[in-house]
Amino acid sequence: MDKKEYIIRQLARTKNKKYEAYVVHRIVNLLNDFDIKIVTQQYVMRSDGRALTDLFFPQLSIHIEVDEGQHFTKNNIKEDKIREADIINVTGHEILRVNVIKSFDDINKEIDDIVKVLQTKIEELKKNNKFVEWDIESEFNPQTYINRGYIDINDNVAFKTIKDACNCFGHNYKNYQKAGAPHPNSDILLWFPKLFPNGEWINKISDDEKIITERNKDDKKAKIHLTSIIEKKKNEKHKRIVFAKVKGNLGDTLYRFRGQYELNIEKSNFENTLVWERTNTRVETFKQQLLKK
Amino acid sequence: MDKKEYIIRQLARTKNKKYEAYVVHRIVNLLNDFDIKIVTQQYVMRSDGRALTDLFFPQLSIHIEVDEGQHFTKNNIKEDKIREADIINVTGHEILRVNVIKSFDDINKEIDDIVKVLQTKIEELKKNNKFVEWDIESEFNPQTYINRGYIDINDNVAFKTIKDACNCFGHNYKNYQKAGAPHPNSDILLWFPKLFPNGEWINKISDDEKIITERNKDDKKAKIHLTSIIEKKKNEKHKRIVFAKVKGNLGDTLYRFRGQYELNIEKSNFENTLVWERTNTRVETFKQQLLKK
Repeated sequence: MDKKEYIIRQLARTKNKKYEAYVVHRIVNLLNDFDIKIVTQQYVMRSDGRALTDLFFPQLSIHIEVDEGQHFTKNNIKEDKIREADIINVTGHEILRVNVIKSFDDINKEIDDIVKVLQTKIEELKKNNKFVEWDIESEFNPQTYINRGYIDINDNVAFKTIKDACNCFGHNYKNYQKAGAPHPNSDILLWFPKLFPNGEWINKISDDEKIITERNKDDKKAKIHLTSIIEKKKNEKHKRIVFAKVKGNLGDTLYRFRGQYELNIEKSNFENTLVWERTNTRVETFKQQLLKK
Repeated sequence: MDKKEYIIRQLARTKNKKYEAYVVHRIVNLLNDFDIKIVTQQYVMRSDGRALTDLFFPQLSIHIEVDEGQHFTKNNIKEDKIREADIINVTGHEILRVNVIKSFDDINKEIDDIVKVLQTKIEELKKNNKFVEWDIESEFNPQTYINRGYIDINDNVAFKTIKDACNCFGHNYKNYQKAGAPHPNSDILLWFPKLFPNGEWINKISDDEKIITERNKDDKKAKIHLTSIIEKKKNEKHKRIVFAKVKGNLGDTLYRFRGQYELNIEKSNFENTLVWERTNTRVETFKQQLLKK
């Protein structure tokens, strides 16, 4: 998928809400900078679940919310504020709002102001050498991250295949389908889980992404699995770098970097569930090398 | 409906075609001039039927067509050229095209060029004092046309009610529902027909809008009607100013000005059908006055 297809498909996702479509198209057109990636209808974590924002600029950590009529009852304003605080607390992101109940001139004025905020943020990042131009060719390419030396959760990193994620850590796979792979550090496993109930597994990630729980649906199997991992029976690791299998918002499958997690044995004894806690939001990448299998 | 609602609803009509949505939104946003009216999916007359253009600027007489993949087979290119020539011949309008098969940069370049053409046209009209600012409040108000002194087909004039059309010609109706009304010139009838088969009538307008045909479905009634009109039995008129009942493209009912027509008795004898030929594309308006009923 090239930028043309990507941008046009992202914008087309606004089609069922005419105000949202107007605001999102207008911001993108007036910003008029295709070195900036957009994501429409971005899921964000909040304390009591997930929220959806209307437009997200990952490089700028800025979300846009289009406030339509239903936002302006007294209760909803309160809920919106809680929701906004949640998103900001959990992600450190900023949220800018457009109130489409206002007059046409006022809406367009608010959009102009938002575009200025975005432009200021871009200039600021560039001045501090923190700006990374959106390159749709390279953003899924392991070499990009090998060259960068790390993968950081703030960069919204995802790969199209398990092998691409593996190849950021010394591998040179042409094909790789397993949910686990070795890491240059023999204490660490590369893990590619589905973080929702699937098949015989009940896996979950907390809304702040700091805790992953893992268990087998079958009580006996869960017990065996838990013991095997805790006791490192089959050379199991207690550290895992996690790329969760997710649906991208254009319907594509992606393996999204979630961080490095470590087993908390104490907490894991409860209900035969393994509890993994995030220890790092940034991990080192490795050039292709010989790895011990 | 205010400009906000109008513009946003017009843009929302592009929602089922993602390239069209991108191009139409982007042109409107980059032109960024809400003194300019837009119409999406505008019907235009052509020699063999009607065509739909993706975006129309009535004040500028310019249409935009978004060329997607299907336009580029050899036959379609030919058909497109014929279609374009037809539209230009019939309406005198200009058509600008955006080829969305091209690269993203090229598409955006084409859109930039189109915006420049639109801006040049606006400047030209302003310089020649031919620019009429889009005013959504006044465009349906009879007083606008009384002040202007005329109604011209090039101004795309339509009214929301029959009474509003009537009140451009000396009336001061609060309510009026009939399909005919008097005109200050007693030789002329104001006519508000449905120009398609409806009820017991088969009315039609030619694609170039120059000829209206009128007949009753029932042969006997058609004969009686034709004779009555031709012989002016009930003080019938042979001149009619026509406002055709149409659906506006946001689903609203409108009475659209088509011109002044005159009965061609010679042609009318054929098949008991009355044939009205357009004689004027501009008609005089009148201040409120006493009219003979």
